[in-house]
Amino acid sequence: MDIRTIFDACHFSSEKMQKVNLFATTELFLDVYCLEPGQKQKVHTHDEASKFYVVLEGHGHFHIADETKDVGPGQTVLARAGESHGVENASEERLILLVGMAPPPNHA
Amino acid sequence: MDIRTIFDACHFSSEKMQKVNLFATTELFLDVYCLEPGQKQKVHTHDEASKFYVVLEGHGHFHIADETKDVGPGQTVLARAGESHGVENASEERLILLVGMAPPPNHA
Repeated sequence: MDIRTIFDACHFSSEKMQKVNLFATTELFLDVYCLEPGQKQKVHTHDEASKFYVVLEGHGHFHIADETKDVGPGQTVLARAGESHGVENASEERLILLVGMAPPPNHA
Repeated sequence: MDIRTIFDACHFSSEKMQKVNLFATTELFLDVYCLEPGQKQKVHTHDEASKFYVVLEGHGHFHIADETKDVGPGQTVLARAGESHGVENASEERLILLVGMAPPPNHA
């Protein structure tokens, strides 16, 4: 059975945000993103894929389709196909995100 | 911005497991499933969609492709397209799951 323990998979680097894949199929991927304070995922767009972020720990400063908001633990954020999106850890604590996208980039 | 607070969305019923949709796009859905002790999602199969479960609270007894395992908080389980899958709350505590599927059923 494909089971992953999310926090065990998570690892951080002082160089940049770490993306760790949990699951990948032809229909979706599920990653964990690990951001030290000050690290970010640059704003970008997928024309044909939806992405969601779940904040597991810490606070993220999200940019979705020209809106920006701080999002905290237990909250989830959606970026629809064609909406620009990115996230920055503007806090002083680590940020851990569960991130899913469908379809995955090589199929989008 | 599409933001949902997962535990605020969750609600339980003594009648059956509750599924609450958080996000739905043409590419994916993200739900929260709320199971009282003894409640379950029957084993079923989607031939062309992948589904993942994240245990947010409690313990789930998962059936995936003829394997069964107990999965706890912070763990995630994958059911690939064509794999039978279901979950039962065989514990004495409530079970809360974040569940995503791609593509959603009406597109699969």
